[in-house]
Amino acid sequence: MPPPTTSSRRPLRERKKLRARELIVETAYQLFDRHGFALVTVPDIVDAAEVSRSTFFRYFGDKQEVVFADAQQLRDALVAEARATPAPSPHHLREALEQLRDLTVGAYQLAGTSPRSELHEQLIDANPELMDRHIRKLMGFADDMTALLITRGAEPGTARLAGHLAIACCLAARGGTVPGDMAAAVSKRFDEVIRLNAR
Amino acid sequence: MPPPTTSSRRPLRERKKLRARELIVETAYQLFDRHGFALVTVPDIVDAAEVSRSTFFRYFGDKQEVVFADAQQLRDALVAEARATPAPSPHHLREALEQLRDLTVGAYQLAGTSPRSELHEQLIDANPELMDRHIRKLMGFADDMTALLITRGAEPGTARLAGHLAIACCLAARGGTVPGDMAAAVSKRFDEVIRLNAR
Repeated sequence: MPPPTTSSRRPLRERKKLRARELIVETAYQLFDRHGFALVTVPDIVDAAEVSRSTFFRYFGDKQEVVFADAQQLRDALVAEARATPAPSPHHLREALEQLRDLTVGAYQLAGTSPRSELHEQLIDANPELMDRHIRKLMGFADDMTALLITRGAEPGTARLAGHLAIACCLAARGGTVPGDMAAAVSKRFDEVIRLNAR
Repeated sequence: MPPPTTSSRRPLRERKKLRARELIVETAYQLFDRHGFALVTVPDIVDAAEVSRSTFFRYFGDKQEVVFADAQQLRDALVAEARATPAPSPHHLREALEQLRDLTVGAYQLAGTSPRSELHEQLIDANPELMDRHIRKLMGFADDMTALLITRGAEPGTARLAGHLAIACCLAARGGTVPGDMAAAVSKRFDEVIRLNAR
């Protein structure tokens, strides 16, 4: 067993790190909201958050990454949770899609409870460079979902197709959807695919 | 009717432009093949092709765009052709997907006949920045296909979903596919989606 000093110091350091990260994200979102994404610089963010430039770059590769801080963390947590939870092996594409619908819609539902979620969606819709980053993130999510389905015993080709179809549902749901309704809109797109040809 | 001098000068200028563009693409592909995409610069390309820098930038926004010169031109031509060809209004998602399968698989089949097609696919797979650009291009293709289906009378939500599902089939087909077999692999993914739940 480690000495008590070590064990108590560790969580404190962890908490401090989380606080610095959260402070950067919250400050950046306030600045983006006030001035627009394009006009805010990394120096603006570190000045307003009163952190060092090196602290900023310890958590984020660039300004764009801050916009996806919540979404990335949430998806990583949900994928990790799904990996740790026993689930039946998906025997065909429909079952694979049903499993990914639950995961994906769950992610949008949870994201929707964050006070930053609406601005997050607006920023993506208004800035092509953030839309590019969003799409790159979704491709990473597709890879994670593919790996998850393979772990559960799905055939790799089916898993990969299901992962990309899930992302297609997310992207198709953006068109003309009010930010707050993303979870319902994504769920509807999944159902349209899952019920193809069904009587 | 325009005077003969004008009408004969126009096609010549057009042909000269096409020749300069083709020369840039062919030279760039030879350099990419020899040295790898990352090590070739725009000055290298214009030197080897013996064109001016301004000629290069008249046709291409950056080095990445040259890699997609054929694919973009091909897709634009196929979408224009599809727009000009009468087609039945897709009544539901399956019919919309069947129409996009023909268009998308046709694009990969035609692309496969180009001697540059294999290197094109290899460059994308080997360079993350080209994969990003490829995905951005595919999103543009999704928008074009959505617009096409709407023109044909499809419900906009169905059209948008079908457009993104088509791209999902293209992306899912990349994994573990030999470049030359892309058309067959994309077609197979479409069939898996179109036949969901079918007996």
